[in-house]
Amino acid sequence: MERSAIRDPLSFSLPRTLEVLERTPAVLHALLNGLSDDWTLHNEGPGTWTPYAVVGHLIHGERAHWMARVRKCLSGEDRAFAPFDRQAHDEESAGKSLPQLLGEFEALRKRNLAALMAFELTGAQLEGIGLHPALGEVRLREVLAAWAAHDLAHLHQISRVMARQYREAVGPWRVNLRVMG
Amino acid sequence: MERSAIRDPLSFSLPRTLEVLERTPAVLHALLNGLSDDWTLHNEGPGTWTPYAVVGHLIHGERAHWMARVRKCLSGEDRAFAPFDRQAHDEESAGKSLPQLLGEFEALRKRNLAALMAFELTGAQLEGIGLHPALGEVRLREVLAAWAAHDLAHLHQISRVMARQYREAVGPWRVNLRVMG
Repeated sequence: MERSAIRDPLSFSLPRTLEVLERTPAVLHALLNGLSDDWTLHNEGPGTWTPYAVVGHLIHGERAHWMARVRKCLSGEDRAFAPFDRQAHDEESAGKSLPQLLGEFEALRKRNLAALMAFELTGAQLEGIGLHPALGEVRLREVLAAWAAHDLAHLHQISRVMARQYREAVGPWRVNLRVMG
Repeated sequence: MERSAIRDPLSFSLPRTLEVLERTPAVLHALLNGLSDDWTLHNEGPGTWTPYAVVGHLIHGERAHWMARVRKCLSGEDRAFAPFDRQAHDEESAGKSLPQLLGEFEALRKRNLAALMAFELTGAQLEGIGLHPALGEVRLREVLAAWAAHDLAHLHQISRVMARQYREAVGPWRVNLRVMG
């Protein structure tokens, strides 16, 4: 078993990207399902998100953006992405429990990945260009890489938000645990 | 469903702490088991850890430290904790696959939590004091809170290490995803 440590960034590959995208629903389920509100409904202060809110945000991305962006990159015309509404999940999640949201995310992700795989994307298609409202021209392979990295970024956020709830409880460890900020 | 956002830190509670400790093996399994070496054997540069190394480190903590610290806090004498060897996992993980390590971590954590629960800790015992080589006097409730927060800190690390492998692949999203650093 090699335990090498290579610093060069990974280049895009579709299988590598799918590996991450396929896992996220199960990761969030293992981390959050059945967890008490103490952990899931606390945030990092005004204007920041709870783990519950993050799951709502991920659902909004599945429903309204990521696959729409894929389709824009594949279309010959109308390449402009819709702007991402970072508050949409507030209304969309209203009245739903976290287990409900986790189930919804899992179903949407599964459906989206099935649709993605049905395209049987070619190398040329992966170079297809879309127009992001803030970032400008992006290629389909960058959209897909960003979709996976966005999952990881929000897992990073959820673990930080949760850890920081215990910033006082850990006593002197607060200075040892960098996640406490 | 309340979607409140409370900023006050959570005080220690044993059930709240166990909720996190019990979940971590399944979270790491969902995230890492079967994932390709591309994701699990890359780090953030010289002297930093791969996700594989982090799992080895967590195993070392289960085997050699966290429960030993609990016992020190409960003992009337010999309260000094052993120093934590942050490289021990290099040797201990040698020759083992990541799925093996994930299974080992799960078994050790399960055994440790069973032992912890068998103590049926009282409020007075949770105030028991141990002596950390760097941090000085710590209470048992702080050891337990730190054990859970340490899990979350390493989940935070693994998700960051993985996300950053795609720092080039995401193209212009690099500036939008704070996790990229």
